Amino acid sequence: MAKDDGVTIIVMSGDMDKVMAALNIAIGAAAAGKETNMFFTFWGIKAIQKGNPTGKGFYGKMMGLMNRGGINTIGPSRFNFGGIGRWMFKQMMKQHKITPLEELRQTAIDLGVKFWPCEMSMQVMEIDVDNLIDEVEKSCGVATMLEMAFHSKVTLFI
Amino acid sequence: MAKDDGVTIIVMSGDMDKVMAALNIAIGAAAAGKETNMFFTFWGIKAIQKGNPTGKGFYGKMMGLMNRGGINTIGPSRFNFGGIGRWMFKQMMKQHKITPLEELRQTAIDLGVKFWPCEMSMQVMEIDVDNLIDEVEKSCGVATMLEMAFHSKVTLFI
Amino acid sequence: MAKDDGVTIIVMSGDMDKVMAALNIAIGAAAAGKETNMFFTFWGIKAIQKGNPTGKGFYGKMMGLMNRGGINTIGPSRFNFGGIGRWMFKQMMKQHKITPLEELRQTAIDLGVKFWPCEMSMQVMEIDVDNLIDEVEKSCGVATMLEMAFHSKVTLFI
Repeated sequence: MAKDDGVTIIVMSGDMDKVMAALNIAIGAAAAGKETNMFFTFWGIKAIQKGNPTGKGFYGKMMGLMNRGGINTIGPSRFNFGGIGRWMFKQMMKQHKITPLEELRQTAIDLGVKFWPCEMSMQVMEIDVDNLIDEVEKSCGVATMLEMAFHSKVTLFI
Repeated sequence: MAKDDGVTIIVMSGDMDKVMAALNIAIGAAAAGKETNMFFTFWGIKAIQKGNPTGKGFYGKMMGLMNRGGINTIGPSRFNFGGIGRWMFKQMMKQHKITPLEELRQTAIDLGVKFWPCEMSMQVMEIDVDNLIDEVEKSCGVATMLEMAFHSKVTLFI
Repeated sequence: MAKDDGVTIIVMSGDMDKVMAALNIAIGAAAAGKETNMFFTFWGIKAIQKGNPTGKGFYGKMMGLMNRGGINTIGPSRFNFGGIGRWMFKQMMKQHKITPLEELRQTAIDLGVKFWPCEMSMQVMEIDVDNLIDEVEKSCGVATMLEMAFHSKVTLFI
């Protein structure tokens, strides 16, 4: 891979459509042979969770109740209506043969996209590394993420 | 126009204020003589629609009902309250002589900003090229958008 | 500071979590010795307000009612529930010793991060320079912001 011309994507959103956009861009970049790093922070952490509710402490549990983890449970940024938006979006995606989130994520992994969990977010949301999918890199902070960004051609905040 | 120092803007949001920000940035870049490309995906497609409700199939029609097209019908990302937010925002913009979205879009076109519709989004939302304004380029995918981004100085995700 | 390798952050969101992310990234960049500029536009203006309700005219007052200023009053982009989300988020941040927004902002200022208020936003939202914290630079427009972006390595839209 060439140097300093990769892609860094900061995924803060936990919305299904935005995570889908982020993964699609990452896959496109990796397919074009670029070094591609995704930094998952705040709600974005959902996209790399195993599916079990987050949080061990009191606040973490409340957060988990409102925010039950796993890439299959997240809804779009608009028109969620208690899950109907997600259902409809999935129906439309299925009807048009659009790859579901979990498969997109696997494709990204297969293409060598690196997934970095934000350390501070894991701490605040009381998420353990055991709650994350096995393919994630070591959790890191803003400094490490910025180091990647400084060596990228394109950095996006999603 | 100089090479590799342009601006690429990925517009995923269909919110009035964000589309306005995107267009303002694009206009500023084009006015500064930079090659400027906007890639409209997901809800962002609204900003380049002709105004007729989207979608031919069942899901597309439901999407259209919730998401009646056209740049004049979209509301801000906050405080929409069933349209009141949009009305107030428009009143404030009028009072302060801020250019409405449709004129902003025309200015961008006049300055040579290129509008690219996302192929996959058109497919999922069942939007035909006939539903888009005449000035759009050929619909394209992530690979083409990334090609632009790799030759830009600034790439934004809005 | 080295040239053309800094960071420009456009802060459009007024959500607590997003402003926090923006400030954290800015602090990380400044701590790494990079020239760091933040451009606050639309709802992002809240993050550099003194805390008094915005707006002198009728629309500005309505905007102020819905959008009472000050960095301590803003809620997260999800699960706000009339302030409960903000309260819980603050509790979790406190419990985990995460720096509150006001201190983050001060740290950014101390590290030399420059805060630029968007002129058009101040006009539309009827916000006076007196309503902003003393540390802000002169208000400016898209052209000035883009000039910074063209001389940055990383430009983010948050």
